[in-house]
Amino acid sequence: MNPSPLLKELVGALQILPGIGPKSAQRIAFSLLQRDRNRALQLADVMRRAVEAIGHCRQCRTFCETEVCELCRSPQRDAAQLCVVESPLDVAAIEQSADFRGHYFVLLGRLSPIDGMTPESIGLNQLEQRLKTGTVSELIVATGTTMEGEATAHYLRQMAGVSGVRATRIAHGVPIGGELEFVDGSTLSRALASRHEY
Amino acid sequence: MNPSPLLKELVGALQILPGIGPKSAQRIAFSLLQRDRNRALQLADVMRRAVEAIGHCRQCRTFCETEVCELCRSPQRDAAQLCVVESPLDVAAIEQSADFRGHYFVLLGRLSPIDGMTPESIGLNQLEQRLKTGTVSELIVATGTTMEGEATAHYLRQMAGVSGVRATRIAHGVPIGGELEFVDGSTLSRALASRHEY
Repeated sequence: MNPSPLLKELVGALQILPGIGPKSAQRIAFSLLQRDRNRALQLADVMRRAVEAIGHCRQCRTFCETEVCELCRSPQRDAAQLCVVESPLDVAAIEQSADFRGHYFVLLGRLSPIDGMTPESIGLNQLEQRLKTGTVSELIVATGTTMEGEATAHYLRQMAGVSGVRATRIAHGVPIGGELEFVDGSTLSRALASRHEY
Repeated sequence: MNPSPLLKELVGALQILPGIGPKSAQRIAFSLLQRDRNRALQLADVMRRAVEAIGHCRQCRTFCETEVCELCRSPQRDAAQLCVVESPLDVAAIEQSADFRGHYFVLLGRLSPIDGMTPESIGLNQLEQRLKTGTVSELIVATGTTMEGEATAHYLRQMAGVSGVRATRIAHGVPIGGELEFVDGSTLSRALASRHEY
């Protein structure tokens, strides 16, 4: 028997969050009600506002609530370097750790004809227009190393070639601080194949 | 540089959820925006409604949005058995697994004078009134096995004694399916001390 249908509804709704199963959802719901009612109201409010207001930057397609995002508008960033990533999460990761000062282009996916992800649906015609303007001199391909990510990278390289833009790919290999013995086989073989003069 | 202040606000607000750190919050925020906008709106809505509508049952103090909860109102439950637990989560756990058909009383805490948890603040005067009515014949003490939980259990036993109500304590020992070798020392010694005729 369930003393509160509304509580049950909340526990159900919390399970849309990635990584939250029934037990965690229950724990979260009870904790919100028992300790954090005000902050739960704030979370509900910012969640609604974010979903309603956040769209995509017209220029780089990352999440933003303005027409063109702060990154694309900043005069301190170098428009000649364009880093292509799969997701806004990748933009956040690079911004948080690397000292990249160029622009981004977010595919919001990767080429995968089986899933209906065509060049158009990941914005490649928009990217092509941008390459044609001549402002970009280097296209940094930072898509993932899945099969689809590599296929997308391949496509991007060809596209850059057609527009006469230099294409580079971020390095893949043994992570910094990683012990060789714990690195998986495909990373190791990629690291060996990509060895360079030293 | 952060392309969306609102997104940053959402990532921050998500971290009030127990068990959600900065990385998970970021992943959740991006996933809501990229895949689940409608369901995110629903979650925000049910969260607001739950916080505004869910209070505590006047009789058993568990979470519910009516004055007296369904469990307390049900004619199919036996009011003579009263199970005392610390949290509404415990009610949910017992309801989901055990076939207990009595009533509950939720302390919403446990005795801990240092933290300001007095008998009054965990509702014990209310419970005392209930014991005096004579409807309860067995008080099942299901508080936790922390020091505070045991102190609360002790207090409850004395209270039941004063009102002439039989007090019982749920059994503690080796979990079902558990291997002896993996059971911690205090559980094992409790299991041995509580051995019974067989």
